[in-house]
Amino acid sequence: MSLITLLTDFGLKDGNVGVMKGVILGIAQDATIVDLSHQISPQNVHEAALILLRSAPYFPASTIHVVVVDPGVGTSRRPIAAQLGDQYFVGPDNGVITMLLDFTKKQGLTVKIFHLNQPQYWLAEVSNVFHGRDIFAPAAGHLVSGVSISSLGTSIDNPIQIQIPQPEKMAGSLRGEVIHIDHFGNISTNVKQEHLVSKEVKTLTLNQVSINGMIRTFGERPEGELVALFGSTGNLIISVVNGNAALRLKTKVGDKVEVFIQ
Amino acid sequence: MSLITLLTDFGLKDGNVGVMKGVILGIAQDATIVDLSHQISPQNVHEAALILLRSAPYFPASTIHVVVVDPGVGTSRRPIAAQLGDQYFVGPDNGVITMLLDFTKKQGLTVKIFHLNQPQYWLAEVSNVFHGRDIFAPAAGHLVSGVSISSLGTSIDNPIQIQIPQPEKMAGSLRGEVIHIDHFGNISTNVKQEHLVSKEVKTLTLNQVSINGMIRTFGERPEGELVALFGSTGNLIISVVNGNAALRLKTKVGDKVEVFIQ
Amino acid sequence: MSLITLLTDFGLKDGNVGVMKGVILGIAQDATIVDLSHQISPQNVHEAALILLRSAPYFPASTIHVVVVDPGVGTSRRPIAAQLGDQYFVGPDNGVITMLLDFTKKQGLTVKIFHLNQPQYWLAEVSNVFHGRDIFAPAAGHLVSGVSISSLGTSIDNPIQIQIPQPEKMAGSLRGEVIHIDHFGNISTNVKQEHLVSKEVKTLTLNQVSINGMIRTFGERPEGELVALFGSTGNLIISVVNGNAALRLKTKVGDKVEVFIQ
Repeated sequence: MSLITLLTDFGLKDGNVGVMKGVILGIAQDATIVDLSHQISPQNVHEAALILLRSAPYFPASTIHVVVVDPGVGTSRRPIAAQLGDQYFVGPDNGVITMLLDFTKKQGLTVKIFHLNQPQYWLAEVSNVFHGRDIFAPAAGHLVSGVSISSLGTSIDNPIQIQIPQPEKMAGSLRGEVIHIDHFGNISTNVKQEHLVSKEVKTLTLNQVSINGMIRTFGERPEGELVALFGSTGNLIISVVNGNAALRLKTKVGDKVEVFIQ
Repeated sequence: MSLITLLTDFGLKDGNVGVMKGVILGIAQDATIVDLSHQISPQNVHEAALILLRSAPYFPASTIHVVVVDPGVGTSRRPIAAQLGDQYFVGPDNGVITMLLDFTKKQGLTVKIFHLNQPQYWLAEVSNVFHGRDIFAPAAGHLVSGVSISSLGTSIDNPIQIQIPQPEKMAGSLRGEVIHIDHFGNISTNVKQEHLVSKEVKTLTLNQVSINGMIRTFGERPEGELVALFGSTGNLIISVVNGNAALRLKTKVGDKVEVFIQ
Repeated sequence: MSLITLLTDFGLKDGNVGVMKGVILGIAQDATIVDLSHQISPQNVHEAALILLRSAPYFPASTIHVVVVDPGVGTSRRPIAAQLGDQYFVGPDNGVITMLLDFTKKQGLTVKIFHLNQPQYWLAEVSNVFHGRDIFAPAAGHLVSGVSISSLGTSIDNPIQIQIPQPEKMAGSLRGEVIHIDHFGNISTNVKQEHLVSKEVKTLTLNQVSINGMIRTFGERPEGELVALFGSTGNLIISVVNGNAALRLKTKVGDKVEVFIQ
């Protein structure tokens, strides 16, 4: 298996994702490359961290995830590679691995992080604005070709991490927030089943709207009804059956949700 | 050949298509995966059925088409797999195969359909909201790896089918409707060359606009002219030469077209 | 290596890109296919020429670039294939290769161009509206399978070329124009480092706005500042640090820029 995924904020119109693939395939002609997303909001490291966390666990061992959401490109921010359990990461040291790193550590798996400082594994010319092409794609290409991760750079133990908002436990409720809105308008919150312990959800409120209880599957309610359920990532989500909850509730990432439990 | 296509309404921003590919490649590392579309309108089974019909015949024998436009996910709607001539289908039993099934039967080719009810070919944990990841991707992965389609479930002969609008023959005309509007704004109708028998198109009307006769190719007319011709799928289409007919005529799927023949 | 790239104005919703891949893989099952872009503005040959120029040099030798931005489909415009240095091109003879052809010639590399007129390398049925599927995909499939480029058609030496705007040298300045706006809103101009010879940029103006001097990397300036720098393609670009310059300046392709040098 020689599998690489790409996760960027590049969009798909300018050819830059294709160019990264050309660079990888020039180094590792048998690599299989999968797109995770190229529609991360520009420079939104937090959103990329979430998509990486949600996607990586479904990939086979030794998959290399190249993430290029990189507002600090060309500055002193370090390029890094990491082994996170049986998955690999290549990208900027800007906190985009925070959630996957936490997840890996909680499972007690191996974590090794390296500062990419061996230019022989980069393109000969490195621009100040496109390290996806010039550093990260070639590093991933060499890694998938059999170069060991420790050859790519120097071991470090202080990767940048970003603050991940956690739900706050109140008497009788959990105060969380909206962390993602998907293509269908489903609203994902940072409240997870594990936060409820053995309690049940009585009601929840978001943007002055209340929802009573939770359902297990969309089919339990008629089309157009506003519902709460646990989504495919284990997060509490708010949805409209075959509709768009985010548009209906005018919700955005960061909006507060309160979940009353009993 | 171990070729799988994916056709969904997931969009490309959330990583869900990538996750399905990760699941497939974890089971069948040599699979080649091609995207048909991930921009089917949310829950639009009819649109997915049309894109599947238009695409599948151009793929080599034994290609597996995984379709996840699935408004009934988590309900009692069955997950199915089908052999349709030399092509395979994996997805929900909601009628999305209707057009390809009809096409296959008209050619007198083999049709076999199976209710996917063997959970050993699914992910260990099956959510209520993402069967693309939990059931359909792994089923396709096993199928492409050599598991026989009949091992995946129980033979059935009553798949759900949807109503496909057919043009109505009047004295001197055919009354059809708009079935698709493509990226360029070309308006595709359900009137096909075979419906004309040996007659010629005299004029046609759509949304109070008339077009005289048909052309064979865009280059016959100047840029900006409204024309009718047979498109690459054999359907009568209405176009603006190097322009956008759907915007010009404010057309939507379901609008009525009348084709006067002589 | 058997690598094919696709560059079209098809968008991603209608399945047409997938169909081209099905045709290619039916002929050349081991081909690796990479998308460059399918979001070229409809019929914009100039934009496709630029994306092709910027992408092709990053691909390994013998890569075949299939470009289908084809306003003249179905007319007498020729289908062609070309060897341009160590890269190959397949697509319409409408000038889309102009920039890559110039680049190849400047490097003194081999150029060979062929009129595709051997229908045995096409699909059996050729429509008047989708040569990407019917001619270009199968031609690329045969080429990657080992058919020689000279077998696909007749040698020609008069490919259509389009006019590429060049910056004009004035006393103390260069007058150029905007040639591309990327997904981030970065504004790319046709002024390149080589045009400055050994001079420095003093100031530049675009749409009544002046920018003083140039920076080397985004990190030199605070978020939200309007800056000029050399982009990853060597072109002078105008950007907003972690923002969208094209929206801020209401810029479009073709807008004039004047670069004052000293």
